[in-house]
Amino acid sequence: MATVKLWTDEEIAAVPQLKAVFDDIRATRKSGFVNNFWRALANQPDLLQRTWTTVKEVMIEPGTLDPLTKELVYIAVSTANSCSYCIHSHTAAARAKGLSDQQHGEFLAIISTAAHTNSLANALQIPVDQEFLIG
Amino acid sequence: MATVKLWTDEEIAAVPQLKAVFDDIRATRKSGFVNNFWRALANQPDLLQRTWTTVKEVMIEPGTLDPLTKELVYIAVSTANSCSYCIHSHTAAARAKGLSDQQHGEFLAIISTAAHTNSLANALQIPVDQEFLIG
Amino acid sequence: MATVKLWTDEEIAAVPQLKAVFDDIRATRKSGFVNNFWRALANQPDLLQRTWTTVKEVMIEPGTLDPLTKELVYIAVSTANSCSYCIHSHTAAARAKGLSDQQHGEFLAIISTAAHTNSLANALQIPVDQEFLIG
Amino acid sequence: MATVKLWTDEEIAAVPQLKAVFDDIRATRKSGFVNNFWRALANQPDLLQRTWTTVKEVMIEPGTLDPLTKELVYIAVSTANSCSYCIHSHTAAARAKGLSDQQHGEFLAIISTAAHTNSLANALQIPVDQEFLIG
Amino acid sequence: MATVKLWTDEEIAAVPQLKAVFDDIRATRKSGFVNNFWRALANQPDLLQRTWTTVKEVMIEPGTLDPLTKELVYIAVSTANSCSYCIHSHTAAARAKGLSDQQHGEFLAIISTAAHTNSLANALQIPVDQEFLIG
Amino acid sequence: MATVKLWTDEEIAAVPQLKAVFDDIRATRKSGFVNNFWRALANQPDLLQRTWTTVKEVMIEPGTLDPLTKELVYIAVSTANSCSYCIHSHTAAARAKGLSDQQHGEFLAIISTAAHTNSLANALQIPVDQEFLIG
Repeated sequence: MATVKLWTDEEIAAVPQLKAVFDDIRATRKSGFVNNFWRALANQPDLLQRTWTTVKEVMIEPGTLDPLTKELVYIAVSTANSCSYCIHSHTAAARAKGLSDQQHGEFLAIISTAAHTNSLANALQIPVDQEFLIG
Repeated sequence: MATVKLWTDEEIAAVPQLKAVFDDIRATRKSGFVNNFWRALANQPDLLQRTWTTVKEVMIEPGTLDPLTKELVYIAVSTANSCSYCIHSHTAAARAKGLSDQQHGEFLAIISTAAHTNSLANALQIPVDQEFLIG
Repeated sequence: MATVKLWTDEEIAAVPQLKAVFDDIRATRKSGFVNNFWRALANQPDLLQRTWTTVKEVMIEPGTLDPLTKELVYIAVSTANSCSYCIHSHTAAARAKGLSDQQHGEFLAIISTAAHTNSLANALQIPVDQEFLIG
Repeated sequence: MATVKLWTDEEIAAVPQLKAVFDDIRATRKSGFVNNFWRALANQPDLLQRTWTTVKEVMIEPGTLDPLTKELVYIAVSTANSCSYCIHSHTAAARAKGLSDQQHGEFLAIISTAAHTNSLANALQIPVDQEFLIG
Repeated sequence: MATVKLWTDEEIAAVPQLKAVFDDIRATRKSGFVNNFWRALANQPDLLQRTWTTVKEVMIEPGTLDPLTKELVYIAVSTANSCSYCIHSHTAAARAKGLSDQQHGEFLAIISTAAHTNSLANALQIPVDQEFLIG
Repeated sequence: MATVKLWTDEEIAAVPQLKAVFDDIRATRKSGFVNNFWRALANQPDLLQRTWTTVKEVMIEPGTLDPLTKELVYIAVSTANSCSYCIHSHTAAARAKGLSDQQHGEFLAIISTAAHTNSLANALQIPVDQEFLIG
């Protein structure tokens, strides 16, 4: 169903640049499973490498936002962009990081409320209050 | 600049249904300032009342997600929807709830990474892995 | 503020292909006012002509949907696409075609409810019921 | 295929809060069929209840816009937001409310013309005419 | 799976207005294959005719942009709009016009970088530099 | 108007990490002008550095797509995402790389045609033809 070929583990293993990225994905995530997103990007080794480096730095390395908050922000963007693949994969990731049903319910309430008020603010073309401007 | 009139405090005070909502906004937020979003919605009393009730329940009443996480999810949706007003007002709200520059930087990194990978997943039309499906 | 020059009536009058389109806009709408959208498209005469022909056929010529319904559908699309110019110009057009404040309020309630449920249906990736499929 | 479980009638019947909403959906619509959207929201009883209340008030209770116009506005938003589920369910709803093939054709012409002109107005960043501003 | 019926060649052949458009599609593209997009539009003969005329003029008739550049611009828009059908059909069209794997990789890098910087520019609400304004 | 402070040259010069990126932007582009996008990102040095590295590699370093095609793809994405800043800055960049008025007109025709057909394909939920699938 994709617009490109999805690479198997055997095909990945035959290309050193690809194998290095896949090995790092498995080691970083401590899991043998590598999802289709990376198998599709394998058609473009440079893009695969740059994308994995960014995702690892931004989503996995520790910072001041906790891992679950990061996933919720990620799913919020993906939902607004109608990215079916991203919604599925990061909802699964959020659950793996401890998302409870109650938290999921609150998250759904927030994104639907934001979509609701975004729609009103856009339709009404409300001018930004001076109080919200910087400088 | 709006597509509707923005109501002043004097005009609000003259309509009991509107005054009740504005009083509740001020009491709930413990602040005399009411931003333009609500002044624009005042043209539609029922819509104003329903929208405020939802925003209060979802964004303000305590739950299992902390207030800052809620604001970040909200800004993420608003950015993807290009809602200028919403981005301004909720970035200000997030700062009022303690968003640090470092957290803002991490947040920006997450939404731009999500937009990046959303774009790739959509362009490649990657099939959802069986591992991510429910039931 | 535009990314292209906006043509004045004097400049339009000097180019027969442009003048013909502007004359038809004025005659069709029974008004001397021509808004900036058409002045910007004047940089591209073929695009101007094709776009005006389509807008005239679709939005102005009579059909089975009434003129106000057409404008509401148009504003709904423009709001979801965050097209500030389009929201302003077609809200004005809808008012000129009789949109009452109460109808505007109902319209705003519908688009914000649609944005709300769109967000939930996308986040939940709900499979389409067999009952909704054709054929 | 969803990111959450879809609840069966048996499971709904066992939870009074869910049963009350489902009974009201069936009574209000005068139909035994309840589509997957509500079965997915059943995972979050409060969200289910609030969403149904809003949909019922906005889309079903009588107002100054006729039921078919409401559905067309709804589908327009859903199409711009690429919400596959919403497009399917509300196109079916519009047909049930009398949408003819000719009206559907005119609707499609409007949303595609709006998308066409939205794209031009955004790309050209056209300044809003003074004539369209309020106040 | 569609919201409308897809017309077969036999059904098309029985309606002269539809047959004329389908004959022109086949003659223009020098191929007997007509994809589902046109079979769905056949429900609305006027819309079919207007859409095909525009697509032919804009995408197929020679101009100052080469055919492959046109397809890449087209896929870029379709990806941002999450139009699954359009991404599939125009990625196939781009390949038929000579898109190499390396070009596809560069294209994917551009659209994901644009999505990344769009997200940042929107979240930061950066004022447009004077240097970029016309006039 | 931004949600963050825009850094002046004096402030940039005082922070070595920022100065290094700004020096590279000026050297790479062979111009003293640095636009507001980078001045806003200066609030987040790591994000600035990573974003500049990506933009430089993807948009400026030579590849198999020519520089003007890259800019057109970029503007197409930015228009669909309603990113006002990005549309302004990259339309200026495209002009600096030789975009003629005729090419701009053809580009506008393509993006508006794509938005038109995206809207139809989404509204009709057309199934992807077998001929367009990979593998």
